[in-house]
Amino acid sequence: MKDKVRVAVVGGSGYTGGELLRILSTHPKVEITMITSREYAGKPVSLVHPNLRGIISQNFTTFSLDKVSEKSDAVFLALPHGVSLNYVPKLFEMGLTIIDLSADFRLKNPELYKIWYGYEHPYPDLLDKAVYGLPELHYEELKNTKLVASPGCNATATILALAPVVAYNITDNKKFISDVKVSSSEGGAKPSEGSHHPERQNAIRPYDADGHRHSAEAEQELSRLAKTNISVSIVPHAVSSVRGVLASAHSWVSTDINEIEIWKKIAEFYRGRKFIRIVRGNIHPYPDPKYVIGSNFADIGFAYERRIGRLTTFSAIDNLMKGAAGQAVQAFNISMGFEEDEGLRIPPMRPG
Amino acid sequence: MKDKVRVAVVGGSGYTGGELLRILSTHPKVEITMITSREYAGKPVSLVHPNLRGIISQNFTTFSLDKVSEKSDAVFLALPHGVSLNYVPKLFEMGLTIIDLSADFRLKNPELYKIWYGYEHPYPDLLDKAVYGLPELHYEELKNTKLVASPGCNATATILALAPVVAYNITDNKKFISDVKVSSSEGGAKPSEGSHHPERQNAIRPYDADGHRHSAEAEQELSRLAKTNISVSIVPHAVSSVRGVLASAHSWVSTDINEIEIWKKIAEFYRGRKFIRIVRGNIHPYPDPKYVIGSNFADIGFAYERRIGRLTTFSAIDNLMKGAAGQAVQAFNISMGFEEDEGLRIPPMRPG
Amino acid sequence: MKDKVRVAVVGGSGYTGGELLRILSTHPKVEITMITSREYAGKPVSLVHPNLRGIISQNFTTFSLDKVSEKSDAVFLALPHGVSLNYVPKLFEMGLTIIDLSADFRLKNPELYKIWYGYEHPYPDLLDKAVYGLPELHYEELKNTKLVASPGCNATATILALAPVVAYNITDNKKFISDVKVSSSEGGAKPSEGSHHPERQNAIRPYDADGHRHSAEAEQELSRLAKTNISVSIVPHAVSSVRGVLASAHSWVSTDINEIEIWKKIAEFYRGRKFIRIVRGNIHPYPDPKYVIGSNFADIGFAYERRIGRLTTFSAIDNLMKGAAGQAVQAFNISMGFEEDEGLRIPPMRPG
Amino acid sequence: MKDKVRVAVVGGSGYTGGELLRILSTHPKVEITMITSREYAGKPVSLVHPNLRGIISQNFTTFSLDKVSEKSDAVFLALPHGVSLNYVPKLFEMGLTIIDLSADFRLKNPELYKIWYGYEHPYPDLLDKAVYGLPELHYEELKNTKLVASPGCNATATILALAPVVAYNITDNKKFISDVKVSSSEGGAKPSEGSHHPERQNAIRPYDADGHRHSAEAEQELSRLAKTNISVSIVPHAVSSVRGVLASAHSWVSTDINEIEIWKKIAEFYRGRKFIRIVRGNIHPYPDPKYVIGSNFADIGFAYERRIGRLTTFSAIDNLMKGAAGQAVQAFNISMGFEEDEGLRIPPMRPG
Repeated sequence: MKDKVRVAVVGGSGYTGGELLRILSTHPKVEITMITSREYAGKPVSLVHPNLRGIISQNFTTFSLDKVSEKSDAVFLALPHGVSLNYVPKLFEMGLTIIDLSADFRLKNPELYKIWYGYEHPYPDLLDKAVYGLPELHYEELKNTKLVASPGCNATATILALAPVVAYNITDNKKFISDVKVSSSEGGAKPSEGSHHPERQNAIRPYDADGHRHSAEAEQELSRLAKTNISVSIVPHAVSSVRGVLASAHSWVSTDINEIEIWKKIAEFYRGRKFIRIVRGNIHPYPDPKYVIGSNFADIGFAYERRIGRLTTFSAIDNLMKGAAGQAVQAFNISMGFEEDEGLRIPPMRPG
Repeated sequence: MKDKVRVAVVGGSGYTGGELLRILSTHPKVEITMITSREYAGKPVSLVHPNLRGIISQNFTTFSLDKVSEKSDAVFLALPHGVSLNYVPKLFEMGLTIIDLSADFRLKNPELYKIWYGYEHPYPDLLDKAVYGLPELHYEELKNTKLVASPGCNATATILALAPVVAYNITDNKKFISDVKVSSSEGGAKPSEGSHHPERQNAIRPYDADGHRHSAEAEQELSRLAKTNISVSIVPHAVSSVRGVLASAHSWVSTDINEIEIWKKIAEFYRGRKFIRIVRGNIHPYPDPKYVIGSNFADIGFAYERRIGRLTTFSAIDNLMKGAAGQAVQAFNISMGFEEDEGLRIPPMRPG
Repeated sequence: MKDKVRVAVVGGSGYTGGELLRILSTHPKVEITMITSREYAGKPVSLVHPNLRGIISQNFTTFSLDKVSEKSDAVFLALPHGVSLNYVPKLFEMGLTIIDLSADFRLKNPELYKIWYGYEHPYPDLLDKAVYGLPELHYEELKNTKLVASPGCNATATILALAPVVAYNITDNKKFISDVKVSSSEGGAKPSEGSHHPERQNAIRPYDADGHRHSAEAEQELSRLAKTNISVSIVPHAVSSVRGVLASAHSWVSTDINEIEIWKKIAEFYRGRKFIRIVRGNIHPYPDPKYVIGSNFADIGFAYERRIGRLTTFSAIDNLMKGAAGQAVQAFNISMGFEEDEGLRIPPMRPG
Repeated sequence: MKDKVRVAVVGGSGYTGGELLRILSTHPKVEITMITSREYAGKPVSLVHPNLRGIISQNFTTFSLDKVSEKSDAVFLALPHGVSLNYVPKLFEMGLTIIDLSADFRLKNPELYKIWYGYEHPYPDLLDKAVYGLPELHYEELKNTKLVASPGCNATATILALAPVVAYNITDNKKFISDVKVSSSEGGAKPSEGSHHPERQNAIRPYDADGHRHSAEAEQELSRLAKTNISVSIVPHAVSSVRGVLASAHSWVSTDINEIEIWKKIAEFYRGRKFIRIVRGNIHPYPDPKYVIGSNFADIGFAYERRIGRLTTFSAIDNLMKGAAGQAVQAFNISMGFEEDEGLRIPPMRPG
């Protein structure tokens, strides 16, 4: 383990790229050696990310496999789905540690890429080598990997809400609904009709409501945990905040159980996990992404309507942190042998 | 039927009261003869409702049964739960048409008031005389009533989303989850810790998540429609817009059905209903309260994830209009023999 | 005067076009005979404007001078600057009443088009025939015109704030600063980097701060009123609401004057103007666009810091109403001999 | 200089107190030994500040001079105006370093407390001992002080915008208007009618517009810099973001000057100041508080409308950071002999 790991951020001009830079610029064990952007190559990073004025003085550069491997030990790929997979095999051969934030290596079953992403996966063998980068489920495997497939934001929120439920069989349901409320930054930095401020502000707008891609990875991970087939229907809704996701995962309880037992099982499941905070109590009884913004925390809680046997487990994250860049750095830390929360001890803001 | 109905608005200083005034001030068949407020009696209405400067020049007055009955033929009660019921019996005896916007006469079963509202209902006999003021379900009864119990906003959204599902047995579920997203004006005009702007803005905050009062009226109405016991768990979430509610009502489809059939059943159920708009199509495929704001419309739509058999029916309303004042005026119109949409032909704003 | 005026809305797919449709659809003296859109011709209006589902069932059509003149008596042009001027001369010849919402005929001095809009005006003679469509300043002229140049939103806000000040010489300043706060719908319906929700929300962002085009028309109108050259520097700031503009027009008072006198002069200046509301008082002492949203009102008020002799006059409007479509209909009404507020008696919403 | 300074936060339950805790919890040279709150004594800090769950495990305690002096070397007073002054003299005698975030020791002239704050200052002699805690103006004095009077947020924004203008006589104005746009967290954690979400959201609402208290300290500091009497009229406007202040300080340029010269003078004035970022350029040409949120930066820029000789200098800060807690820690660092930015190297978020 060298003093500082030399890190490249590939695709540094989007929101996830920018968030990686925000974190890595203060990470004590990282030196950012390269920040690539096809569109902005040659221009200052702070031109695109004005928040980083005075913090990052580098320019964007173009990407090449050789330059990346020459200048860096680890590489974060913040690229669109279907683009990462063109570079990962070579970078993997070259021996770099790869944290891929796209969906390209998240699914174990290559068939699912056809169904959910519309392409035939060209490197099915590599899928087995990738570790799904959710440290709360794959801590040990992450220690020994050089290829991390960093989870999607809605998948992260959904899995974290449901993991204790399926692992400890709190309800015996095999099908779950994850009703997700999503902030606008989740859609990325590229403007569209739907992201136009007058349209997006004050919206409470369902989208992808007949099938959301992140269901595939959520089902993979929850089925593994449950040791049986679990189906999850993710129903996302755009709301008008800029950051934050709340997943409300609904299921039906048939057995007799009480709130304390539910709480105990969730607490037990997440015992020792640095970024999980179990939320109960009277002033703020349920998770709200508002109180994790800017940080890598996932706040987990639940509500149980005993009368009718309905259990909802909630998970609140910052979509750009625990839902993207923060979680990627967390997995990177583990794979590097650093403290899991190195560079990630960033308290959330209040109010924000 | 006189030329103009003389109308009193009792409790005119809150948001629902203000919204009634906004509508009634341009209603061609209404003369507002009295606007009461204990707190602001003697002061101009426009002091509290600055939007109504130049529109309503009256002052608030104090309330008394005699004055109300002397000066008005119909009365809207925009009072807190548990207060309306003190006045309704006398006003009913006096022969006035009463539109009560509180919960005090919504439930047929007096036992439910103990469970959900914490009081013993003092006038159980009157419960049967009241008509639940959802015109899409009770049009004919409303024609002949003098006591309208105007529905709650989250109940309205939930019932409108689920009515076709249970009436036509689209799914055979007996238990439903209505995941509701709620804007801040639903909480009324009184400030609290939770409504403080820095806390409320950017929140995605579950509340009353272990049992919401509006479940009682939703279950009553849906069970009546289904001719069997229906349970509904309403799970509300505060989001950061000011107006608008979206209910996402989730259920599981066991039979083989397709999207066209679902659409047909919903359209059939609501055929001829003036304020229901069925939403399908490619640019805006699902209901969004953003596009009903300011109006009495309820936009209804659905998403069906066939893969897993999950059906979500959506209902989007303006909580102060179709969720409160607008619906109250709609029921008033019917009971008076006016056109259902008299004074309510207010197009929603875009963008808003 | 016929029973109903046949009206064409040319450029009906943008926000101003949509707002015209919202108003005109309930205008008792108007029949909308044509709604054009190059991009959406043949498609339902409600596809683009989902708020108008169930209200306007027409399709967009293509534009042609012949069709417009055949089907309509009056035409609203909601087209970009530099496009209107291609159609206005012919429509004018054909005898239609034209309400042009672009800047193309607002300025009397053709030289100013070069400076502020970058083009040589091809029809300078028509500039004199156009009436600047601010009814508070040009009521009489509007009665007799067939060509209305409808004002810009920031210009409207600025002029209404400063008109009494310069007309009655409340301060003797010849140069004014109008610090304007602007909502996102002012930028129109086309997405851009700056209008992308994650960027626009929570912004307090100056723009065009070294010279805003609307200064030209504001100076023209205020100089006319003052009978001397008046300079106005408009400094706009994007804030994160969707609708509403507030102009804070600052000047220095050298003479001894008190608040009552200022109030009297402003009230005197606007006496009898239906859409002007003078704001004073204790709960809501200053204008706030929040309380005019959806309506054609302009709320006018002021603050005087006597200690230092600083006077700020405020003007709050809905940029799409009094700042665009509402004002256009107001001018149309006058030119048609209708009541000034026909179809415009729309109360603002609260809260909104 | 000890290893870690023992620090008390007095008044830890408000927004400024919470923000101090957010910063100090990761400050490498600070140990938080005491967090007081009259209202919440005995209760966990994270009950009030749910963002600090898992970060601060202490409880609030009651305040006493003895306990504070026993347990701490430095004390931050986040108390209301008029309350701090009861404790400061004793704490000062006891030899603690005091960072007072109230207005109680900001003004040198005791007469001004009567005029602007309505009380007779009981300790006028101490006023001279306090250093106005704006490090960009008082760096050297802060090194040797034990009593820091930390500036107000609108004053900070205004002074930073105008300091180069008056110091280098860029305009020869003696009177300035600072038109300030203010987010809701500036009003503190206590709910009120005006802070109620439905009222505050979408507002563009002037307040204190006939004279804002922070004018007093701004005039004191700018007059000192200018070596002549400077008057500043601060005109604040509530806008609907949660964090961030933008001051737009307007003045008139009579001499011939160009943009480069203005830029040079501003850059020269702030040379070497760690938290000042001078903003120019094409994508984001002006300061916007959006890009400093969460950090202690002040972004400074300007717009010059040469045509008319109007200069606006802008200053964008996070009101809880550079406008309150961040600046207080910055002054504390200097007075302790630490690096000015110790514990404050927090990059702003984007988007936020």
